[in-house]
Amino acid sequence: MMKLSSRIRRCGLSPMRQFYPYEVAAVNKGLKVHHMNIGQPDIETPPAFLEAVKDYQKNVVPYAPAPGEEAYLQAARAYYAGLGCALEDGDILATFGGSEALEIVMACILEEGDEVLVPEPFYPNYTTFIGVTGGKICPIPTSAEEGYRFASRERIEPLINERTRALLVTNPGNPTGVVLSREEMQVLVDIARKYELFLISDEVYREIVYTGEKNTMLAFAEAAENVVVIDSVSKRFSTTGARVGALVSRNHALMDEALKWAQGRLCITTLDQLGAAKMYETLGMEYFRSVRDEYRRRREATVEALRKIPGVEFTSPDGAFYLMVTLPVDDTEKLQYFLLEEFEDRGETVMFAPGAGFYSDPELGRNKIRIAYVTAPEDLTRAVELLGLGIAAYHRRNQK
Amino acid sequence: MMKLSSRIRRCGLSPMRQFYPYEVAAVNKGLKVHHMNIGQPDIETPPAFLEAVKDYQKNVVPYAPAPGEEAYLQAARAYYAGLGCALEDGDILATFGGSEALEIVMACILEEGDEVLVPEPFYPNYTTFIGVTGGKICPIPTSAEEGYRFASRERIEPLINERTRALLVTNPGNPTGVVLSREEMQVLVDIARKYELFLISDEVYREIVYTGEKNTMLAFAEAAENVVVIDSVSKRFSTTGARVGALVSRNHALMDEALKWAQGRLCITTLDQLGAAKMYETLGMEYFRSVRDEYRRRREATVEALRKIPGVEFTSPDGAFYLMVTLPVDDTEKLQYFLLEEFEDRGETVMFAPGAGFYSDPELGRNKIRIAYVTAPEDLTRAVELLGLGIAAYHRRNQK
Repeated sequence: MMKLSSRIRRCGLSPMRQFYPYEVAAVNKGLKVHHMNIGQPDIETPPAFLEAVKDYQKNVVPYAPAPGEEAYLQAARAYYAGLGCALEDGDILATFGGSEALEIVMACILEEGDEVLVPEPFYPNYTTFIGVTGGKICPIPTSAEEGYRFASRERIEPLINERTRALLVTNPGNPTGVVLSREEMQVLVDIARKYELFLISDEVYREIVYTGEKNTMLAFAEAAENVVVIDSVSKRFSTTGARVGALVSRNHALMDEALKWAQGRLCITTLDQLGAAKMYETLGMEYFRSVRDEYRRRREATVEALRKIPGVEFTSPDGAFYLMVTLPVDDTEKLQYFLLEEFEDRGETVMFAPGAGFYSDPELGRNKIRIAYVTAPEDLTRAVELLGLGIAAYHRRNQK
Repeated sequence: MMKLSSRIRRCGLSPMRQFYPYEVAAVNKGLKVHHMNIGQPDIETPPAFLEAVKDYQKNVVPYAPAPGEEAYLQAARAYYAGLGCALEDGDILATFGGSEALEIVMACILEEGDEVLVPEPFYPNYTTFIGVTGGKICPIPTSAEEGYRFASRERIEPLINERTRALLVTNPGNPTGVVLSREEMQVLVDIARKYELFLISDEVYREIVYTGEKNTMLAFAEAAENVVVIDSVSKRFSTTGARVGALVSRNHALMDEALKWAQGRLCITTLDQLGAAKMYETLGMEYFRSVRDEYRRRREATVEALRKIPGVEFTSPDGAFYLMVTLPVDDTEKLQYFLLEEFEDRGETVMFAPGAGFYSDPELGRNKIRIAYVTAPEDLTRAVELLGLGIAAYHRRNQK
């Protein structure tokens, strides 16, 4: 038998994937399934993206430069300048979505047994990006009662050891919706500097903050050597299928290594970069405000409906389009199977992401779910209603 | 100082990159630079690609499924069926070009210190894909005198040890243009089976074989568990900027692990997959023949011009669009600097890829270059003429 790497064997499949056959079976039974399980927004992709792609006139679609198409890099730098962050050539690298930016930075900083501090619950794919290098996640514990906040010296410093290489945060948070305050960001910056850690800030939801405040770790000039920002047009412009992201850092030693990876895979897609450039060039504050307002309506619909379900606990999120909800059930995976196999209300049921997949120890998330509020408010109201009806039916079934 | 991974530090930048500033300087002096250094063909991208992309009607560009868009996977399976290879669901994974397919397979099979056998000279980016895992290349030596052929038991078996995990071949070959015979492929299959190695066959140039014969390692049913094929539309359809490739294997244990990586990075680009699907659906034998005929003309022009240069040695290539040439100079990197800085003929000069970057020990490639014949025949004739004039001028300069 050919050997497979123990690193990849320790990684897992998507925690959402196990329900897919049951979803198909439910649909085949004639049920309508409401989706609160995945972060695929239904917001229209800006016409600028497809216009730029359709405008392509040359008769060859060649490799782009390895660091990125100049049009995209320039447009992205102009966007950052608008945030008050001047970037130089070489501070930004075009990547296949935020995902590849994470793959690259982990490959550049981790070796077997190295650790990355990550507040828990966390985006499950972080496990893969870190795991394939042989590194591992050291979770920073949080609690639902404290609204999943984590940025304090007391909580983080005791977890740091000689194998700790980085602190990875999602801000605004997926799956929690937590937005770091300026003071909390400063705490993280101070820790990163004191212990010489990379501070990797996944800011793909930066424009979706309901207070309208935009923050980026790039603003902390004193941590220029530590800060690495992960970015993407996917959620910002509702173009998840474009796979255009960015790795941003003023640490030139890191960016020099990242360029080796970039040259190895030659380039990212040419046409999608032109589309991304056009969106950055033509859409600004007004567009971001309108998208934010739409997500705020979706959050309100979700939160209002959740308040009607007895025994449910959550904190209203300040950013991104997710929230963690504690349910009055022992195991939300069992509830999900029940909702797909045994439950319906007027021919409808609902899916969410069970919480276990967002924790290094699945037991910590057993009674939790992540909701993605990415559909129209009236759909969300109905989806959460179905969740409530489903929980009640689940309890009745279990009492028999 | 934050630590960077020793793995990435051992990888290198592109061996072509060091000449870029000198090229810019030459152009700024008013010189026309002929390019035989990079594999970017000037063959038109089939209109079907851009038509499919421009035909996109939905108002959201969403994530594709992690394993690939069904339209692309189906079209690729139909193409393989045409080669006589029936593939099932799950035997093929859409990847960001052949490059990501290589990244994925190396991440799935290698750990620190593992070895991959690769005939030398080899595609320089293999060093990065293997190096970032902590693995290393064990070169299979070849010689210009034997036309760079390598597929014999006597040459390969003594190099296998307990850390050997795979045999990686490019067929047709980059940089050598060597095409494996059916008998040579059988030798590799037998070795892979005997020593339980993965047999990774990078077949992105499959359709560019001047005898018209198409071969794929997938045809060897007895090695279904060993064989992994790397594929891409980049060179096949002259769409290098689309970044649509494939990882193909009937080893389900491997493909299950590969799916973890695929889910981690969510998906590859949606629109480019639709374009790739359309090309496979509408272009077949006739298209491949016309492209092959064009590259044959380019090969003839290149080879004919090379025969006029005194002291040059090479084997006329059977496939792909590259060849290795031994020059009557000590160091082809020095020659390249001379050609960009001191030489010109009627306002023109020429670039090639110095051979050192294609060898694990750069000394082995010092007197060699790789030529990519990807431009029109008359341009290639002139480019090779410039090479000959440049070598003569270089010798005159050195004799002073």
